[in-house]
Amino acid sequence: MLDQVLARIQAPDHQAAAAAAARQGRLTKPAGSLGRLEDLSIQLAAIYRKPVSAIRHKVIITMAGDHGVAAEGVSAFPQEVTTQMVSNFLRGGAAINVLARYVGARVVIVDMGVAGDLPPHPDLVVKKIAPGTANITRGPAMSLAQAEQSVLAGVEVFESQLDRGLDILGMGEMGIGNTTPSAAIACALTGESPESIVGRGTGVNDDGLQRKIAAVKKALEVNRPDAGDGLDILSKLGGFEIGGLVGLILGAAANSKALMVDGFISTAAAMLAVTIAPAVHPYLIAAHRSQEYGHAAMLSWLGLKPLLDIDLRLGEGTGAALGLSLAEAACRLLAEMATFEDAGVSGKA
Amino acid sequence: MLDQVLARIQAPDHQAAAAAAARQGRLTKPAGSLGRLEDLSIQLAAIYRKPVSAIRHKVIITMAGDHGVAAEGVSAFPQEVTTQMVSNFLRGGAAINVLARYVGARVVIVDMGVAGDLPPHPDLVVKKIAPGTANITRGPAMSLAQAEQSVLAGVEVFESQLDRGLDILGMGEMGIGNTTPSAAIACALTGESPESIVGRGTGVNDDGLQRKIAAVKKALEVNRPDAGDGLDILSKLGGFEIGGLVGLILGAAANSKALMVDGFISTAAAMLAVTIAPAVHPYLIAAHRSQEYGHAAMLSWLGLKPLLDIDLRLGEGTGAALGLSLAEAACRLLAEMATFEDAGVSGKA
Repeated sequence: MLDQVLARIQAPDHQAAAAAAARQGRLTKPAGSLGRLEDLSIQLAAIYRKPVSAIRHKVIITMAGDHGVAAEGVSAFPQEVTTQMVSNFLRGGAAINVLARYVGARVVIVDMGVAGDLPPHPDLVVKKIAPGTANITRGPAMSLAQAEQSVLAGVEVFESQLDRGLDILGMGEMGIGNTTPSAAIACALTGESPESIVGRGTGVNDDGLQRKIAAVKKALEVNRPDAGDGLDILSKLGGFEIGGLVGLILGAAANSKALMVDGFISTAAAMLAVTIAPAVHPYLIAAHRSQEYGHAAMLSWLGLKPLLDIDLRLGEGTGAALGLSLAEAACRLLAEMATFEDAGVSGKA
Repeated sequence: MLDQVLARIQAPDHQAAAAAAARQGRLTKPAGSLGRLEDLSIQLAAIYRKPVSAIRHKVIITMAGDHGVAAEGVSAFPQEVTTQMVSNFLRGGAAINVLARYVGARVVIVDMGVAGDLPPHPDLVVKKIAPGTANITRGPAMSLAQAEQSVLAGVEVFESQLDRGLDILGMGEMGIGNTTPSAAIACALTGESPESIVGRGTGVNDDGLQRKIAAVKKALEVNRPDAGDGLDILSKLGGFEIGGLVGLILGAAANSKALMVDGFISTAAAMLAVTIAPAVHPYLIAAHRSQEYGHAAMLSWLGLKPLLDIDLRLGEGTGAALGLSLAEAACRLLAEMATFEDAGVSGKA
């Protein structure tokens, strides 16, 4: 099943990219003066396989799950907050709702493995693998079958949203404790020490930070993940929402859509996705550099340069929402600006 | 006249800022996790003198002028491009038009001193001081009376737009050659050498860069501006559009409105405005760090940290347009997010 998805991922269209770059050179501005917005428009041309595109449908998919490792005291907030925040998302009161409304993006909330009970809601997609993962300091987070199931659920969610209109996807997540598995994944893949990756997440104090570092160390020792095998790492260290995010990336790449990566947890998922399928890389855009300690090292491992660097560390897809807006702006500039010829403006002397 | 404007600039309201900061602490997110967007919402509360505000009217004022120093071969484009680009702005084909439409901002174009003839247009405000400044490598750019006239024209333009609805202003400019006077202004105020400030502007080659550095050196030697006197610097080194931008800043601060500074030229104007009236400083927000070489040093002299760093170097107000969008997002988050109490979400353990 997963192999069938991977087989559908094409290389992006370099001819479309070259045509977009040529058009950028004809627009009424000094060549290159729109900086990263020009680069972004060219990357999007390659992804969409045509020189000039309009982004009409922006979607943010926020995946929620709970984590057995929360029992190790790695978060400043109690586990029940995952469920409470999902309800807040569904009522439209969270940061991601405000930002999505502002940038004109649709928000989809997915229960990938929340520990609490959530009443049915028309905007809640239920793909619950289990009510929270096992504690990764004692053994694997989930079985290999559950890891694959979570990834396939992500692909399914992506493709069901595609039918409703989706040109670009912002990745979001919620899960008390989920910076800990994300840090463990980053350590497994980069080979960096937990001390150089683990940060304060929702805001743990110095003792909490030491508990997080110890938990990541123990999770790596107990589970011995295979750095070359993304599904192995996901099953041993991951979260259900992290698996779902991996699936969103595979689904987007398989359908020639752009992926806006959010913060620390989304980036851990992107690292797993690239490990499973290197071909997804050209479809990834890093929305921002999170204030969370190890995020810069993770982006550097991925070779992605973030668009924004404004000390966000909330997750939910908040940074991605702002990134979607920059991507749409980049497409509009390429599509709507006058050329030197059209406008009767003299070129470089 | 100018003294009357300066006398109206109040200190921002620290009580409103404290109330905004307290509300940020009650919203459903870890404290501080929205990073610079939280800081921005607090700064805006102080400026607007109330804890929670909505930004309804976003305006970009793009001021155009020509420069005698263009004769020194300091630009990659011929001087006629200033006039041609003003026509492009009025037809809606330039980058600033596209971005302003996207972020929902009104664009106002002002002829502060374009050398060419512009037919009347309903969206063109004419405050032409003269058809271009004199060549600053040979003497002052303008008389002291013209410098004051250009600043007062900027105040007038600001206040006339205020009547049409204006909550936050993005500064923009157009003028072939205007990175040269801006660099000279920055050197006069920071004491830095021309080599450490002058950049390639619209994209001059190595020879052009040497000509720019030489022109700035000569302008400083010939004119000997007084680093403590902003109007003296403006008259000796400035441009009419730079004077107009100074006036926009004074006008905004005098009317308790926020100012989004754009790139290299707008920042030079902000440096002059702060020299003339230090009280304007709390009203300034730096939209972005330009790719233009000395911009970081100028922002550092001002003590402003840019929101975006995406290699823009176009001017027109393009970076400011994106900054306006972040400012509105910051206000919406503060106004629209649910509190922990409202949403029934547990606080920090």
